[in-house]
Amino acid sequence: MHYWKLTIAYDGTAFHGWQVQPGLRTVQGILAETLLRLTGEDLLPQGSGRTDAGVHALAQVVSFSLDAPIPPANLRLALNRTLPASIRVLTAEELPEPFHARHHARSKTYEYRLFPRKPPRTGPITPAERICPPFLAPYVWDCSWRVDLDLLQQAAQHVLGEHDFTSFAAHDPDRATRIADTTNPAHNIRTIFASDWRRQDDLYLYTVTGNGFLHHMVRNLVGTFVDAASGRIAPSDIPAILAARTRRAAGPTAPASGLFLVNVEY
Amino acid sequence: MHYWKLTIAYDGTAFHGWQVQPGLRTVQGILAETLLRLTGEDLLPQGSGRTDAGVHALAQVVSFSLDAPIPPANLRLALNRTLPASIRVLTAEELPEPFHARHHARSKTYEYRLFPRKPPRTGPITPAERICPPFLAPYVWDCSWRVDLDLLQQAAQHVLGEHDFTSFAAHDPDRATRIADTTNPAHNIRTIFASDWRRQDDLYLYTVTGNGFLHHMVRNLVGTFVDAASGRIAPSDIPAILAARTRRAAGPTAPASGLFLVNVEY
Repeated sequence: MHYWKLTIAYDGTAFHGWQVQPGLRTVQGILAETLLRLTGEDLLPQGSGRTDAGVHALAQVVSFSLDAPIPPANLRLALNRTLPASIRVLTAEELPEPFHARHHARSKTYEYRLFPRKPPRTGPITPAERICPPFLAPYVWDCSWRVDLDLLQQAAQHVLGEHDFTSFAAHDPDRATRIADTTNPAHNIRTIFASDWRRQDDLYLYTVTGNGFLHHMVRNLVGTFVDAASGRIAPSDIPAILAARTRRAAGPTAPASGLFLVNVEY
Repeated sequence: MHYWKLTIAYDGTAFHGWQVQPGLRTVQGILAETLLRLTGEDLLPQGSGRTDAGVHALAQVVSFSLDAPIPPANLRLALNRTLPASIRVLTAEELPEPFHARHHARSKTYEYRLFPRKPPRTGPITPAERICPPFLAPYVWDCSWRVDLDLLQQAAQHVLGEHDFTSFAAHDPDRATRIADTTNPAHNIRTIFASDWRRQDDLYLYTVTGNGFLHHMVRNLVGTFVDAASGRIAPSDIPAILAARTRRAAGPTAPASGLFLVNVEY
């Protein structure tokens, strides 16, 4: 048995997310079909976690095992020749022992890219709205509210550390009992190691690292931070939102297009 | 009557080109539908020229006239609120006299973006192939041949000035007599004012300005320059290809994804 670890990048725009679904074009499904075509082996590659429809990956980690031996460089080249241009294999390694991309992950890092249509006010003149270039639109939230970068950063600090993130968890159709079960808070407890906003050119970028993320959690955090950065709530309201342990307490779900899985730590 | 000039950007990936076609999603068609919806006026906006399926525009110019008066800022905002994110109106001006985006154009500038998978050899070691990021793939030619930037530039110099570009013209289904009529060379004579390759980060960029372009002309020029830059032909073969006045003499048609209309000069 040969144990494989791939690092892959994908543009989520054209996929119904990571997870294989009958009749739908998904990243996991296309990878499985391509591996079957290249190796003749029928298997389901495991990702470090699911990404939703429209969510992108700069470095998703994938594991599977193959019966036949293949030189790693050959597998990478063959996959990149066969996969659509929207999925690229960045690295392919054969590991000496069994490896599972999800079970062995210690933490994950996501980035969220926000295009603030309204630039910051400087002095008495309100600057004109920026227009989001069509080439950027699939990869950002083209946000029409006036958001303040300092308030985004203040809000983001309140989720650092270990918290019950029930307020930021969507109902997950595949794990109904798990997410709905607010009588057992341990299920929704996660630790956030880093949570920071910064400006890069015309974008506001949010980077978050945690030991795990609930369904829609990053997008719900971003939607709530934007509520805080546009004056609907105050950054100091975040602790009470966490304490409420109900999805209704938090802000809207930010669009999938702005979200990138950027790293998985093992 | 109110005479309008728009500058628009679009991501051509999701469109069957500029020109309206029954049952297909085209930029001109979507613009016409949106103007009808916003103004109640049924008209066909004119572009500076057609772009093929998959070809992008950083600044296509569009003209039309409306019976009703509308403040320019309002028209721009209303269009951007209604159009898909893949089409953006950058500017909207009302002009004092009739304006036709195609008839009044003096010249046009295109850019072609090539991603050279094989970086230049430096010394005896052949560097590894680069992987085209999935986020770049819709906007470049992910070119697997080893191309030399100096040879691209040498080849590009041979098309400067006034030439018969029949060898670089695709058969145009809408204008069959015009392109096929090689007994009347004046129809295929165009003047190229600028024709240059340069490197920008991981990309090789070609910029070309001319008083007009035949169908597929920029993509056929690029395909032929890449032939010259990868050793299939020599840059000094280009004059003979022009003189041959037959499509068979030139190289392949470069993919649509790398081509951008970047400016129209009036």
